[in-house]
Amino acid sequence: MIYLDNAATSRPDAECLKTAEKYLLSEFYNPSALYAGGYNLHLELKQVRRNILSLIADDVNFSLVFTSCGTEADNQALFGGGRRGNVVTTLGEHSAVFSAANELKQRGIEVRFANLNCDGSVNAEHLLSLIDDKTSLVSVIHVNNETGAINDIIKIAEKVKQKNKYALFHSDGVQAFGKIPFRFTKNFDLYSVSAHKLGGIKGCGALIKRKNLVIKPYIFGGGQEAGLRSGTENVFGIKCFELAALKRYKSIEENYNFVSKLNFELRASLDKSLFTILSPENGSPYILTVAAAGVRGETILHEADDAGLIIGTGSACSSNEKKRYSRVILACGIDESSADGVLRISFSPENTLEEVKTAAEILNRIVKNRRDIMA
Amino acid sequence: MIYLDNAATSRPDAECLKTAEKYLLSEFYNPSALYAGGYNLHLELKQVRRNILSLIADDVNFSLVFTSCGTEADNQALFGGGRRGNVVTTLGEHSAVFSAANELKQRGIEVRFANLNCDGSVNAEHLLSLIDDKTSLVSVIHVNNETGAINDIIKIAEKVKQKNKYALFHSDGVQAFGKIPFRFTKNFDLYSVSAHKLGGIKGCGALIKRKNLVIKPYIFGGGQEAGLRSGTENVFGIKCFELAALKRYKSIEENYNFVSKLNFELRASLDKSLFTILSPENGSPYILTVAAAGVRGETILHEADDAGLIIGTGSACSSNEKKRYSRVILACGIDESSADGVLRISFSPENTLEEVKTAAEILNRIVKNRRDIMA
Repeated sequence: MIYLDNAATSRPDAECLKTAEKYLLSEFYNPSALYAGGYNLHLELKQVRRNILSLIADDVNFSLVFTSCGTEADNQALFGGGRRGNVVTTLGEHSAVFSAANELKQRGIEVRFANLNCDGSVNAEHLLSLIDDKTSLVSVIHVNNETGAINDIIKIAEKVKQKNKYALFHSDGVQAFGKIPFRFTKNFDLYSVSAHKLGGIKGCGALIKRKNLVIKPYIFGGGQEAGLRSGTENVFGIKCFELAALKRYKSIEENYNFVSKLNFELRASLDKSLFTILSPENGSPYILTVAAAGVRGETILHEADDAGLIIGTGSACSSNEKKRYSRVILACGIDESSADGVLRISFSPENTLEEVKTAAEILNRIVKNRRDIMA
Repeated sequence: MIYLDNAATSRPDAECLKTAEKYLLSEFYNPSALYAGGYNLHLELKQVRRNILSLIADDVNFSLVFTSCGTEADNQALFGGGRRGNVVTTLGEHSAVFSAANELKQRGIEVRFANLNCDGSVNAEHLLSLIDDKTSLVSVIHVNNETGAINDIIKIAEKVKQKNKYALFHSDGVQAFGKIPFRFTKNFDLYSVSAHKLGGIKGCGALIKRKNLVIKPYIFGGGQEAGLRSGTENVFGIKCFELAALKRYKSIEENYNFVSKLNFELRASLDKSLFTILSPENGSPYILTVAAAGVRGETILHEADDAGLIIGTGSACSSNEKKRYSRVILACGIDESSADGVLRISFSPENTLEEVKTAAEILNRIVKNRRDIMA
């Protein structure tokens, strides 16, 4: 089975699982407990927070709050940061930000959505034009999860602050963390990450925040995570996250180059008379989105599955929304007949060139057969 | 090492972990994905929801929403159910409910707290007197996590509905689920449970709700859990939860009787000139809370830890609140000198009578020595 849906979720790293196993079997204590076993875990989690944080930011100006997933981190950022005035975000956000923004609207906050360029990146000029002195929060996805387009959040954050230095800048970094080399600048306030997209397990994410930024907790209770996220810490999930993130960052450049090769190989091997490439060339190499106009993406996905190839159609999460077309793909300006046949192929450093070659053969064959039947 | 802090967290059941391992290693797909591997997990989670639900409720009138922990389930219940009028709860709630109730107060909702009896159970008469026709939600903990007192939530829920049939009834069942035999009645609306208190792992809980009750989601996004809790499902945690819960419920009466013996043994073996028993005799056998007046609980805890015995002092979660005395213990009417020496000893069916006898010896010896030093 060739697994090319790594943007939906990744295979947990077996080595990291093995190392973290002791947090299930022997070091299973509650980190809030006062005896040595519990307190040592408390200290260890402090170090883990620093270890993950240090991969992209300094721990003088930033801190890290563990959450149960990227979606929760996005919700905490939006509901914590967007409490007044207006909120500016984009039409290219993951549902976690998009739905939270719509809920803010329900609660009486004005929400403004910036248009996308045809590759799925935000139209930065339009975004900036939406910001005024009443803007409390600006949220821009780092890597678009449906097309792989990279938003230059460093430059965007800088311009946001030039326009309104009190507006908070948040970015959903779920598809960027561990994949796209970058570091925080002073213009960042909030950044969401997830563990299960890079070899960690499901049920763990984090919100990175500027240290002196005061936001309300989103989940109230026993006061874990410095009061910002109550609930017994998911120690095993957190340790798997740390180990997987450290491993990915150790070879982040090497992985980036290797995955770029995989991406390039697939781009080159897909039959251009059958597929249109939607992902930009300068996007994340981890995601390649293509359209096979006239053939439903779901049909191709199922036939590929039968042939031993696992791929996605747009965002896995939005499959719950039961809508035929992806709102993000439509916002890119793709017409409905192409939007129907959109496939998202997403890589991991564990994939091989051989797998990608086979994947291209399978996809070319499936779409060609379908076209022949329809002809 | 004798582990008697099972109310803080339990050792994950090794057998369940082994069975669920495949959800990390091979069945690691995203349950929202459309290919067979993902869709099969989606179907499996549906069955898991029914399996856990059926342990305490029927699936015609009730449904189950997976959350990341008991605290999140409590928050969803309070913020989802307590949206108008007034909210009535008790002074004996876990911080997850207590802090959420205080946050509701901040948001302009009137919150009324019912007094406790001296064993930590709610004064039901006082609770009922606080309910009026503006009450939107009543939340009463099932088993008090600090004293083990059981609230007769079946009778309380009935009386709540007699007083105001539109008021929602919620109970935090974290210390009751898998331990105290009971089943839902028609008067229940919301009930919170947690996996890691009964052999599951941290990072998984659930909110059980009346099926036709419409509440808002608390975490917005891709629409998982029928739109009520977005975020990629923590499949491994959920499967561990199911397996551990099914196992516990299979012998719930047997476990109850066995743990009652452990509790009785400890009660009998603790030196009554050194310890006062705070837990009621008709409380949960899983929790035995005692006070050693004049000796700090934390001191005893650390000396016990050195001697190979792990116990708690009140709620593990409240240790983050950095308060010397437990608000719940004080609300029971215990004076400060006793409240200082409160220990919570909590059992699991995996403990042995031998362990409990040794624990009593260790505790008697520690407190006697301390008293001798002070004399």
